[in-house]
Amino acid sequence: MKLDHPPDMRQRLEAWAAGFEPVLVRMLAADDSVPPALVQAVHYSILDGGKRLRPYVVIRTCELCGGSARQAEPLAVALECVHAFSLVHDDLPAMDNDDLRRGRPTCHKACGEAMAILAGDALLALAFEIVAARIDDPRTVAEATLELARGTGWAGMIGGQVLDMQGEHRPADLELVKRIHRNKTARLFETAGRLGAVAARADESRTAAAAAFGHQLGLAFQIADDLLDVTGTAAELGKAVAKDARAGKQTYPAAAGLEASRQAARDAADRAVAALETFGPAADDLRDLVRFVIDRRT
Amino acid sequence: MKLDHPPDMRQRLEAWAAGFEPVLVRMLAADDSVPPALVQAVHYSILDGGKRLRPYVVIRTCELCGGSARQAEPLAVALECVHAFSLVHDDLPAMDNDDLRRGRPTCHKACGEAMAILAGDALLALAFEIVAARIDDPRTVAEATLELARGTGWAGMIGGQVLDMQGEHRPADLELVKRIHRNKTARLFETAGRLGAVAARADESRTAAAAAFGHQLGLAFQIADDLLDVTGTAAELGKAVAKDARAGKQTYPAAAGLEASRQAARDAADRAVAALETFGPAADDLRDLVRFVIDRRT
Repeated sequence: MKLDHPPDMRQRLEAWAAGFEPVLVRMLAADDSVPPALVQAVHYSILDGGKRLRPYVVIRTCELCGGSARQAEPLAVALECVHAFSLVHDDLPAMDNDDLRRGRPTCHKACGEAMAILAGDALLALAFEIVAARIDDPRTVAEATLELARGTGWAGMIGGQVLDMQGEHRPADLELVKRIHRNKTARLFETAGRLGAVAARADESRTAAAAAFGHQLGLAFQIADDLLDVTGTAAELGKAVAKDARAGKQTYPAAAGLEASRQAARDAADRAVAALETFGPAADDLRDLVRFVIDRRT
Repeated sequence: MKLDHPPDMRQRLEAWAAGFEPVLVRMLAADDSVPPALVQAVHYSILDGGKRLRPYVVIRTCELCGGSARQAEPLAVALECVHAFSLVHDDLPAMDNDDLRRGRPTCHKACGEAMAILAGDALLALAFEIVAARIDDPRTVAEATLELARGTGWAGMIGGQVLDMQGEHRPADLELVKRIHRNKTARLFETAGRLGAVAARADESRTAAAAAFGHQLGLAFQIADDLLDVTGTAAELGKAVAKDARAGKQTYPAAAGLEASRQAARDAADRAVAALETFGPAADDLRDLVRFVIDRRT
């Protein structure tokens, strides 16, 4: 794979994310029965200019599997709710104790700790509500609920966060790092691909390709994220840097060094691109996305 | 309604809960991909001798609507997961800061705060995973997911917990108390009735009866709970007493006094029993349950 920087992927992704924002806003609208402070904390945590990588993968894998963007939208929003929930809870004082996220105070800093716990909880419940309320076909709801719950749950992202916490202040261990990356990050990107396939009612072969693409993209993303914590600046990232080392986190660079980490990110990127083969040239934007993810500065 | 104490309801419920325990254990089994410490924290939080009132309502309303206990079991377990999640998070230091629950250290006291947050999160995700993985009929999965998510979410239990936190240290306000009770407690009991009806694929009329029964039972339960905090003993309850007043909570006794609270509990109990009329004598155990809930000492 050539690793030329795709000059326009960031702009294209930003433009896409801007177009996705009204979809998020519409599906996250609350009526009078929801306490306004909770609505505010939830919206603060998700309508905050994230990169929207996961929803992008949901929508585009659905299209590549023969579905429409429209039919994948509820699943894209649901997955972003799960992602936002995980950030809010991971930032809590008892967890990573982060004050800054995307250049703004974290939810518990802005809204208080109790409200942040409850806003995270609400986002997780909302993900499933959106799937069940906004999709007509019961088979799609059932399959999407299963994928979303498994990707999120104790054998998925939440289990990965446990491993991440347990690994703190222990000698760097590459096998543990890989397991954390698989569960904490790659699993939810894999879920993005699976949800796109579910929305399109894809066959097994395309579902497997979408899942493998998502998984490898997620691995590349997390290794790049570990590298950025070492090499990036706080101004670029909108959050503190070098805090993995201070927190004694299990990271790829700590376990394998910078150069091996860069190579591992490239290898995962290659595998992500290889998984796209079945989709042909129509998947070129996802190939650009892979390069964007490992070349990004933020 | 006569309020004679049903002498055997506690024993019957305990016997039923003992029989339900292996179902919980089976559906909460984890494979090697889940970190053992997380499995332990999750099991600690749910396999702890709770009264299992909500699962009992799920199973029995399903049977009264013409279904079998077996087909309602995954929904009963899922609802108990949501209930356990809510207890773990409500007990956290940033929330109610409780050290004792059912006579044992709370999850964060036993497992640490980070693990308690993640165990609660895992229980919530697990609820939806169990619904989607253990029920074959996609329509039932879709409807149950919607009921469970709405009952749990920002317009349901989680929203009620926000109102509960916001109401602390404010002048007692009966309308606010009623809203907290509806959202925080009655909504999830209503969900129990709705899930029973969904499992049985009941018609609208029986669904409405099961939902109304659950809702009124939940109101009666919460008013009785408020009263027990004033009149009970820690030894009986397995948790601290008079802590609502210390925490400045909005409670029925604080807003309306003891006698009006007892009357309100009896009124809700009467409405719960009235909702059961359509089910005839087959619902006699639920009539006993209503009396048990308002007469209980723990």
